[in-house]
Amino acid sequence: MEHLTTLPRPAPADLHAPALRILRRLLAGIERPPGLRLGDALLHELESHPEYTLVIRDPALLRRLVLRPDPLLLADAYFRGVIDVEGDLYSALGLKTHFETVSLSWRDKLALVRDALMLRVSDQNGLKPVGGLASRVARRFAYRHSRKTDQAAISFHYDVSNAFYGLWLDAERVYSCAYFETPGDSLEQAQRNKLEHICRKLRLQPGDRLLDIGCGWGALVCWAARHHGVRAHGITLSQRQLEYARERIQAEGLQDLVTVELRDYRDLDGTAIYDKVSSVGMFEHVGLANLPDYYAAVQRVLRPGGLFLNHGITHDEEGWNRTLASDFINRYVFPDGELDCVSNIQLGMERAGFEIHDLEGLRPHYALTLRHWVQRLEARRDEALREVDEVTYRIWRLYMAACALEFEAGGTGIYQIVASKRAGGAWPVPLTRRDLYRG
Amino acid sequence: MEHLTTLPRPAPADLHAPALRILRRLLAGIERPPGLRLGDALLHELESHPEYTLVIRDPALLRRLVLRPDPLLLADAYFRGVIDVEGDLYSALGLKTHFETVSLSWRDKLALVRDALMLRVSDQNGLKPVGGLASRVARRFAYRHSRKTDQAAISFHYDVSNAFYGLWLDAERVYSCAYFETPGDSLEQAQRNKLEHICRKLRLQPGDRLLDIGCGWGALVCWAARHHGVRAHGITLSQRQLEYARERIQAEGLQDLVTVELRDYRDLDGTAIYDKVSSVGMFEHVGLANLPDYYAAVQRVLRPGGLFLNHGITHDEEGWNRTLASDFINRYVFPDGELDCVSNIQLGMERAGFEIHDLEGLRPHYALTLRHWVQRLEARRDEALREVDEVTYRIWRLYMAACALEFEAGGTGIYQIVASKRAGGAWPVPLTRRDLYRG
Repeated sequence: MEHLTTLPRPAPADLHAPALRILRRLLAGIERPPGLRLGDALLHELESHPEYTLVIRDPALLRRLVLRPDPLLLADAYFRGVIDVEGDLYSALGLKTHFETVSLSWRDKLALVRDALMLRVSDQNGLKPVGGLASRVARRFAYRHSRKTDQAAISFHYDVSNAFYGLWLDAERVYSCAYFETPGDSLEQAQRNKLEHICRKLRLQPGDRLLDIGCGWGALVCWAARHHGVRAHGITLSQRQLEYARERIQAEGLQDLVTVELRDYRDLDGTAIYDKVSSVGMFEHVGLANLPDYYAAVQRVLRPGGLFLNHGITHDEEGWNRTLASDFINRYVFPDGELDCVSNIQLGMERAGFEIHDLEGLRPHYALTLRHWVQRLEARRDEALREVDEVTYRIWRLYMAACALEFEAGGTGIYQIVASKRAGGAWPVPLTRRDLYRG
Repeated sequence: MEHLTTLPRPAPADLHAPALRILRRLLAGIERPPGLRLGDALLHELESHPEYTLVIRDPALLRRLVLRPDPLLLADAYFRGVIDVEGDLYSALGLKTHFETVSLSWRDKLALVRDALMLRVSDQNGLKPVGGLASRVARRFAYRHSRKTDQAAISFHYDVSNAFYGLWLDAERVYSCAYFETPGDSLEQAQRNKLEHICRKLRLQPGDRLLDIGCGWGALVCWAARHHGVRAHGITLSQRQLEYARERIQAEGLQDLVTVELRDYRDLDGTAIYDKVSSVGMFEHVGLANLPDYYAAVQRVLRPGGLFLNHGITHDEEGWNRTLASDFINRYVFPDGELDCVSNIQLGMERAGFEIHDLEGLRPHYALTLRHWVQRLEARRDEALREVDEVTYRIWRLYMAACALEFEAGGTGIYQIVASKRAGGAWPVPLTRRDLYRG
């Protein structure tokens, strides 16, 4: 995290009056404009808003917003502490409506704002618009997905601090979409539901050999061993996750059933050595160009007729690398991640020799999960700031809140796909899915 | 059906002894060769087979088989009554193994034999190999899918005779894949299960407006009205199905809730007038090139956030029009039908603006369904022959048996896809699918 620093807040300066007048006009057409409190001096308040107050500490930002109403300015300013939100963060993310004047489609603007809010600042200068040739050049080199770059990308996101994640994840420490039987389920319950739902979909039986690709802190491999008696092996690229998982396996006395190691999916050994393979929140990291290799690796290690559960994030458009916004997400927040529509994800699986049995969309579950995480992170802000710096805290908070809104708006989806390695017409699941809902 | 006639059986002729010797060699390497009983004279029996006897009434066929071991000869001969199967039809379809000497891959041969067995003979000359330029030309003109050709194709298949279908379909008269809670369910039970499963997946509520595209003999629209209180409208291109459905609606007293009409999906009126749309065993008839128009029509008539259940047959390869075999199926049995892999089916739906919620593979259910149909048809052969000619009976019997094996082998699949018309992030299904499995 060496390139992220806590920035000193700029001192308030005089408000540029003409800029404010223009800003007021910009805001006039908006249904519910936010309250603006400028700096500590409360220089001007355009209108109070019942749900949140936008605190702007540097009037120079207003001037810049008026001259170039660029949502990137807002994101950068938030991360640097120039802007703050008091009250409901989700309502404040409705700031997208401020940018109707930009000559983009509503859809593009929405995406741009949300993505901008996810921008991970890499230096104190901030405010670097990326576009045109520079963007295209960056894009070309951004998605290499070598073993080395993948390792670095995963480390960037997941090696932040085990203690930091522990503050707001559930006790099982599952950092992917939970499964809510009802919206009122606690996060703890919903993550246990999800682990069990996956085990049932894989029809785990005692003695099954399970491989979990991208095993995180070991929640699924331990659950599968403890509750279903399988022999489970997990692989991850995060050293900190590995250390945590090893301690946990020891603590739970599962050494005879569960192993984990630091390994790239491309380096998996063996042929037809697993009965079941799970991959939860992992394929987004693989890169679209590498998905065929990824599926081929799963095919190779899975026995004929074996089941594969592929769980991950999608979006509603085909392919990736299509917008400026994509670059920001990939380079600053979700490193080297690439999304595709769920049909193309399945097409890759079919091409690799999988037969699709079952697909379940879980989009509202991820929105609920993210709102839980944001709430829990906010509730433990002080402890979080002992683990990470202010900028990291702000990025995580806004990133997760913006993602919750993305899942609610429907541009982003999340699916569980159950498939098998084709083998002479084998159908290794029951006739119906009723068994998933027993008890 | 004017081009289909019952053919007189050829008189037995002397066996060509050298041909038989070569045939014996051909059969020698086969694990379990069939018994051969040649004509009424039982001239020679190579080996008895416990499961079936292949009766060959014209020894000239043997000569031809030896000179050119072409599976098309077998299919044609079966339809013309030159070959008969006594005993288990499914085992006899294992005849594919006879053609190992042909220089094709095992997979191609399997497909060719199965497809050939589905060949609908169009004249008494039979034995017309189609290939090369002629095939390509035929292919170019085979898939036009105008309103007129679609009407003719549907009529070809579904206007055979209501009474004929009534002999072997279930009481609800559902001519698509049933849904077996257990393999021992009766066909009657499994078809009722299936109607209810679809209604549950559509989350039908009293007062909902349901459109059923390709409503067949009206089973689903009547079930949905009777058990879920919806107002249902069905469209079909088959005059005979329409007549039957109208009588049934009257007989069940559902005139206030259910209407049906003869209409092409391209001619659907109105915008956003249905809450739910179902399409069961229909999209296979649309033609891949027309699927975008088809999905656009569903989008138009469905209200935003409304649910669409798309149920149909797929295969394990991408696209259609790729083999000689395709032409035979399309031109003689399953008119103008075109299959694609299930990922591409979903991709078309996503492109049209649908969000996929749920996908369920039902491949073994169609194999069970087809075996029930074959068994029921065989049990009522005499009655069937009062409704249709011998050739039609033979085609239907062999077509359905071969399809059962196709579904068992896995090259052909069947899926139910639940999707909604995207509308501002709406998620018009419950958080879980538990409600599908109540009771």
